[in-house]
Amino acid sequence: MREIEKSRSTETTLLTTEEGRNLIVELSAEFHRNGWMTGTGGALAIKTEKGILVTPSGVLKERQNKDDIFLISAEGEVLETPVKKLKISSCLPNFLHIYRIRNSDTIYHLHSVNAVLVSLMEPGNIFRCKHLQMVKGMRGFGWEDTLEIPIVENRANEDDISENIKEALDRQFKADCILIRGHGLYTWGTSWIQAKVHAESLDWIFKVVLESKKLGIQINCS
Amino acid sequence: MREIEKSRSTETTLLTTEEGRNLIVELSAEFHRNGWMTGTGGALAIKTEKGILVTPSGVLKERQNKDDIFLISAEGEVLETPVKKLKISSCLPNFLHIYRIRNSDTIYHLHSVNAVLVSLMEPGNIFRCKHLQMVKGMRGFGWEDTLEIPIVENRANEDDISENIKEALDRQFKADCILIRGHGLYTWGTSWIQAKVHAESLDWIFKVVLESKKLGIQINCS
Amino acid sequence: MREIEKSRSTETTLLTTEEGRNLIVELSAEFHRNGWMTGTGGALAIKTEKGILVTPSGVLKERQNKDDIFLISAEGEVLETPVKKLKISSCLPNFLHIYRIRNSDTIYHLHSVNAVLVSLMEPGNIFRCKHLQMVKGMRGFGWEDTLEIPIVENRANEDDISENIKEALDRQFKADCILIRGHGLYTWGTSWIQAKVHAESLDWIFKVVLESKKLGIQINCS
Amino acid sequence: MREIEKSRSTETTLLTTEEGRNLIVELSAEFHRNGWMTGTGGALAIKTEKGILVTPSGVLKERQNKDDIFLISAEGEVLETPVKKLKISSCLPNFLHIYRIRNSDTIYHLHSVNAVLVSLMEPGNIFRCKHLQMVKGMRGFGWEDTLEIPIVENRANEDDISENIKEALDRQFKADCILIRGHGLYTWGTSWIQAKVHAESLDWIFKVVLESKKLGIQINCS
Repeated sequence: MREIEKSRSTETTLLTTEEGRNLIVELSAEFHRNGWMTGTGGALAIKTEKGILVTPSGVLKERQNKDDIFLISAEGEVLETPVKKLKISSCLPNFLHIYRIRNSDTIYHLHSVNAVLVSLMEPGNIFRCKHLQMVKGMRGFGWEDTLEIPIVENRANEDDISENIKEALDRQFKADCILIRGHGLYTWGTSWIQAKVHAESLDWIFKVVLESKKLGIQINCS
Repeated sequence: MREIEKSRSTETTLLTTEEGRNLIVELSAEFHRNGWMTGTGGALAIKTEKGILVTPSGVLKERQNKDDIFLISAEGEVLETPVKKLKISSCLPNFLHIYRIRNSDTIYHLHSVNAVLVSLMEPGNIFRCKHLQMVKGMRGFGWEDTLEIPIVENRANEDDISENIKEALDRQFKADCILIRGHGLYTWGTSWIQAKVHAESLDWIFKVVLESKKLGIQINCS
Repeated sequence: MREIEKSRSTETTLLTTEEGRNLIVELSAEFHRNGWMTGTGGALAIKTEKGILVTPSGVLKERQNKDDIFLISAEGEVLETPVKKLKISSCLPNFLHIYRIRNSDTIYHLHSVNAVLVSLMEPGNIFRCKHLQMVKGMRGFGWEDTLEIPIVENRANEDDISENIKEALDRQFKADCILIRGHGLYTWGTSWIQAKVHAESLDWIFKVVLESKKLGIQINCS
Repeated sequence: MREIEKSRSTETTLLTTEEGRNLIVELSAEFHRNGWMTGTGGALAIKTEKGILVTPSGVLKERQNKDDIFLISAEGEVLETPVKKLKISSCLPNFLHIYRIRNSDTIYHLHSVNAVLVSLMEPGNIFRCKHLQMVKGMRGFGWEDTLEIPIVENRANEDDISENIKEALDRQFKADCILIRGHGLYTWGTSWIQAKVHAESLDWIFKVVLESKKLGIQINCS
């Protein structure tokens, strides 16, 4: 096995399926510790040599194992199912929309509390932020750029959310992230590493914005 | 030993007693790290093939071992006692009330700070919440449902608390949770996994509600 | 070696010196993770069969080893020094005062941020609190009791702090804790386990009190 | 290998390069867990027997390995490059300024959220603080001293930030720290241990200051 843990962010070679399965188990546990995947919440998708790995529904993220992961084609056809009787994540339609429209090989759907709070604090449908260092952690954004992230409304079922996400993606915003009000976020990248940099940068930005609000600090965000 | 860590939430087979003992040690340590079982606080009960496992009183949850756990019958009769001279958790009467009235095989009593704050913030005897994604983590609740959790008053001794809990249970609310004002919560499920999903979903919901209050965000909660 | 990690709180037998050294290494690392002993802050003292173990000054608590610990007599005479050239904690006079006046075998001095904030929030010299479950975690306190903890002023040097602590101890309050304004706390117990229950209960209480203040919740504290 | 983990803060012997590489891997992972180096953020520099070790750019700090680290001379000449094709941290000019002007062998650049919030809360270009115990964790500061830390403005590129940092250093303030508004901090010391004590003491101080603001507590800070 190649040394996947140590790869750097400019790495573009796809992971083997085995590497991808191990990585999803590790990242799910880490994101659970962060509070981003508690209560079986959230889902991950990573492109590998043989297809896209997608996490199952209803499995504790901190105790997932590598045989619990589905393998699908780029068109969403299931290629490998878990031995256990499991359902694929209900996020699948959203993953497929993002893969079709955006340059990405990895997508993380996370129930981060900070993302949820930011989505509830902003009454409009765009979160804007400028002049915070980790904005530079987002692909294509520099210190003088305003990060703009669309916020879509949550719905009772995933199909309706999916429609909202598709519409937002069609509007062609630049940020590799969508917020879902009261629910969480999707973020993605051209590698699992870039997607992780995005997830961590966003959480840092959201935390600074929320704490600034509580402290009465005026910053370039809305 | 069957692979207990990896079971999925629809699993209904009971754990062996040995599996249950190991699991209680693991979960107690994890819940202690979450701040839900510090200072020996809280208690766990899990049904197994031979009876119900219940944690002892006054033992550090992060250093419990599997021989510290009591085994009791469904009627509350002690079947196996620890080798060390220990007392069974004073939550036992509450566990038995919940087992009798609710469809559950696992019950967690947790001193979560977020649960305590929510119970103190709400002057009435019901916590209500709607339109937050993790409400869907609670058995029987969807996006459009209002989560309603009874809050009972704390008392000087466990017997009096127990009376309050029994009364609340008799009122037949739907949520798999009871809050005890200034003290913590009970949550349960048809498996240890479902109960864990409930515990984590509740903590996420409470955190969003509390932070929203501090941020001046209006949400569908009271 | 006896199984020290698993002992229960009513255990009264003293630890061997070897057990005590290992325990101090473990507890220091755990308290560092809690943010109670960062920057080499805080100090621990545990009575063992041959004398009292006391942590050194200026050593990173998360990387202490068992040979870094001093062994002293009940009168404060150094019995065993570390191989490395280290100074004993400057808290030593405070530890000796507490040992002389209070029934205790373990004392923890912690730079907990929550303790510091509570000490700064209360303008007077007593922190009072009632009707929070973890007050029952403090030796001698029940649900209807008011926890009262003296707050002493911090000073430029440890000798002056020591004088303040001695005066507070002479006033014979009941709680196994003293707060030092802008600095941290001392807490103790008849075993390392009871002292840990006190440290964790206090942190839980302080957190509830501080968050209640931010949320505008009225509780029985001042 | 000497026992690097256990060295005390007065140790002045330089680490071997191998020790330094291992240490950087460990510290990067720990600082990532603290939220100080998420999203590949921040950078570390440690003097060793053969030269100064400096972390690379764009590598996940929690998964760095010891062969990812650069070795440079005191003049900034690269002596050893990683096997992988990596760029050295863009903080290099700042590290060299600090090494030239201040007595230090270790420098940490951290994206601590608390440091960022403090830098945004203070409208002027100096953060001041007094009468908090961990101020004594900063080299040269006692209980009665006022900690003064310069805040420099962030810029779009590192060269401009570097100019601001150089100017601040030339003003000869006493604290072993510089804050960069909306970005993070640099802190340093005569050993990796002293620099860690500084980083942890600063985070503690900033947290107390920020929470005090939210709680409406007046403290000797601005």
